Amino acid sequence: MATKVLANWAISLTASKLPSPVKDAAVRSLYNWIGCAIGGSQHPTVTKLYDALSPFQGLATASLLGHGGERRTDPQLACLVNGVASHVHDYDDTHLATIIHPTGPVASALLAYAEHKGGVSGKDLLCALVAGIEASCKLGLAVWPAHYDIGWHITSTTGCIGAAVAVGKLMNLDEGKMAHAIGLASTQNVGLREMFGSDTKSFHPGRAAQSGLLAALCAEKGFTSSPQALEAKRGWANVVAGGGTPKLDKYLRELGTVWEIERNAFKPFPCGIVCHPAIDACIQLHEEMQSNGLIPRDIESVTAKVHPLVIELTSKRTPRDGLEGKFSVFHGCSVGLLYGKAGPSQYSDDVVRDPAVVSIRDKVQANADAQLKADETSVEIVFGNSLRLQKHVDHAVGSLEVPMTNDQLEAKFLDQCKIVLGDEVKEASDSAWAIGEADDVGSIIRAF
Amino acid sequence: MATKVLANWAISLTASKLPSPVKDAAVRSLYNWIGCAIGGSQHPTVTKLYDALSPFQGLATASLLGHGGERRTDPQLACLVNGVASHVHDYDDTHLATIIHPTGPVASALLAYAEHKGGVSGKDLLCALVAGIEASCKLGLAVWPAHYDIGWHITSTTGCIGAAVAVGKLMNLDEGKMAHAIGLASTQNVGLREMFGSDTKSFHPGRAAQSGLLAALCAEKGFTSSPQALEAKRGWANVVAGGGTPKLDKYLRELGTVWEIERNAFKPFPCGIVCHPAIDACIQLHEEMQSNGLIPRDIESVTAKVHPLVIELTSKRTPRDGLEGKFSVFHGCSVGLLYGKAGPSQYSDDVVRDPAVVSIRDKVQANADAQLKADETSVEIVFGNSLRLQKHVDHAVGSLEVPMTNDQLEAKFLDQCKIVLGDEVKEASDSAWAIGEADDVGSIIRAF
Repeated sequence: MATKVLANWAISLTASKLPSPVKDAAVRSLYNWIGCAIGGSQHPTVTKLYDALSPFQGLATASLLGHGGERRTDPQLACLVNGVASHVHDYDDTHLATIIHPTGPVASALLAYAEHKGGVSGKDLLCALVAGIEASCKLGLAVWPAHYDIGWHITSTTGCIGAAVAVGKLMNLDEGKMAHAIGLASTQNVGLREMFGSDTKSFHPGRAAQSGLLAALCAEKGFTSSPQALEAKRGWANVVAGGGTPKLDKYLRELGTVWEIERNAFKPFPCGIVCHPAIDACIQLHEEMQSNGLIPRDIESVTAKVHPLVIELTSKRTPRDGLEGKFSVFHGCSVGLLYGKAGPSQYSDDVVRDPAVVSIRDKVQANADAQLKADETSVEIVFGNSLRLQKHVDHAVGSLEVPMTNDQLEAKFLDQCKIVLGDEVKEASDSAWAIGEADDVGSIIRAF
Repeated sequence: MATKVLANWAISLTASKLPSPVKDAAVRSLYNWIGCAIGGSQHPTVTKLYDALSPFQGLATASLLGHGGERRTDPQLACLVNGVASHVHDYDDTHLATIIHPTGPVASALLAYAEHKGGVSGKDLLCALVAGIEASCKLGLAVWPAHYDIGWHITSTTGCIGAAVAVGKLMNLDEGKMAHAIGLASTQNVGLREMFGSDTKSFHPGRAAQSGLLAALCAEKGFTSSPQALEAKRGWANVVAGGGTPKLDKYLRELGTVWEIERNAFKPFPCGIVCHPAIDACIQLHEEMQSNGLIPRDIESVTAKVHPLVIELTSKRTPRDGLEGKFSVFHGCSVGLLYGKAGPSQYSDDVVRDPAVVSIRDKVQANADAQLKADETSVEIVFGNSLRLQKHVDHAVGSLEVPMTNDQLEAKFLDQCKIVLGDEVKEASDSAWAIGEADDVGSIIRAF
């Protein structure tokens, strides 16, 4: 029944049914995602992809974000490219219970389709976004953690289905067609974790968006899949369960009562979330050093006690470029201590190779401590004169306990988008906050 | 090393290195596939897909087979549509050791790309086809049978990688880029068996072709994936192994010495391969009846001893349409006895519902006999006058032991394509046989 339950819930959801905190969470998720898509729009990964595929593009009815309406393409390519751009800095949102980055696949597909279709209101866009994100996250919960452990990039494997649900909602698909859209999405499982650290990592949410859009487009024309696609013996959940026991019923039963979008968090730093506590601690230590007249050059050693996942996922000892820097807790700590910041600028190739950064990076030790929570850390610095500074972080900034405020989200938006948009960045930020109130979102999307 | 081994073998393969039986097998595989792609080109599944996606198509540089050059589109859409068309009648080839239908994903991608690129010789096309098919089948062997058992449609999960290898070869990618193409393909796992019986089944090889083409296009522009994509702990083989132990090294070591394309078989009948022996026996009995002046109307009973899988997979007692007829050994026996043929025409809705066919169908009994081999059967007919005819088939036509002859392949081609191409069918058949000798395959492809 899972496929039918999800399809039925999704088609029944209306904007007026959304509780106010859910609406707020949707606005924040979309706002943050737009900033990330613009911020990543000039990245070489995006450029290579666009160069490879633009020779085959169709009628330009959808915009590539970050080009102020000057670069438009067909919706299939637009959602692929925007999806890649939004994830390429690893700076997008995280549903912490599953480490899904839920907005990428869903919003990429939605914006491209909404602009193409025309006449889509901000209210309907947000409602479809919520439907897609809830779908992705509930399915993620149902197969977590074995699905991720075996090696699936859970963002794209679930995001494809979320994207199909979201676009299907804008199309007003009936329950049967929505079920076929879910099925056609569920058969397209893109995303191996082995690709982390390469261009292909951010390809995953983009391709999930594109595959989900395709699923909805085909279902709209009567293309059939399986009405038991999710729950069948050889359906999605069992095939990708990675040896775990899927819990579809348990989580889909909570659709509309427990809202996953409220548990969506936003990254203050453009790198793997697991090393955020250590970076947070180092930024706080930077400030303490400044107050005490201490300088980074005098640091002899830095020791971070971290959750074991930090070691498993981000222990690149000698990252060679910005991309590898994202998988190096050592680099993150180094720039935190040196600059008191860890924004996109601190993850450029130049900064990763900067001798001053490398010098501190080499002094950082990270030790796994299974007693720590995932967002907890203790960092100690020892200086040449034997002076010690210590910082314990109980919950990193950007966690559910210490969420980023709207002001912090806006500072993040402005910081990553000003490089791309220049003086128009504030206007883009204002539009992004207000997109949910638009009568037709198309002109706003074109302006990004 | 598996990714590197495959990449290196593929880039090193040259047309002149291909043993003569391998070349012959390639010609036969491609010929048979072209017939299936033309034969399926007007199917409703194909039409729905084209209607859904053609609004987004790009510059028309590749042809949809079966339209005599009158319907062209961009190569990405062309390979998707041709791939679906070639599998939609379940009439394409089968690598019996893995039940992969290997030519679909590889040839769909290759033909679309070759026509788009221009100046591709038939020799290079065949060499790339062999590279792609060997890649698909070796990878399939490495994860067989657990991968299939858990629920993956092995044709598309391996075919995507084969398509990337094949297109990458036409691009003359170097080893590094070929490895990245393999990786970007391996992260796109399309195909759940749960979709069998719906439009989505034939979507799988089409999407595999499209995803493989995309992987090669991106790799050509320097897009990176993982150089250990296939063999890493969380790489392709381990993630999709379905609980089995992948044997990449064992099978990739045999690249270029054991040629899988020589073990590729062709279906004489457009239905599940398990009921082919019984149909074969009935066609032979039809001929025997004719020689003896016996007529089908006088048949009192037909009893077939068959392998148990025949009962498990094809025992639809009263099929309602052509699609259900494919899963009815009773229908297959009936048309074999009545017409001495079981081609696509004998699987039309009309024939399945024809009272004369139904009347004989109702007299057919099929009894499982676990002593029989999968391609063995015994069929006995009893006539009103108590006369009996009996036929034992040791290996069905289309098996490796009794392969279809080139004449039989041609009859199959003509039979399924004449409905689409009319008078031009013989010319198309001659071109398809000769495509390997062309200086530029583009004009031939356009003519199909």
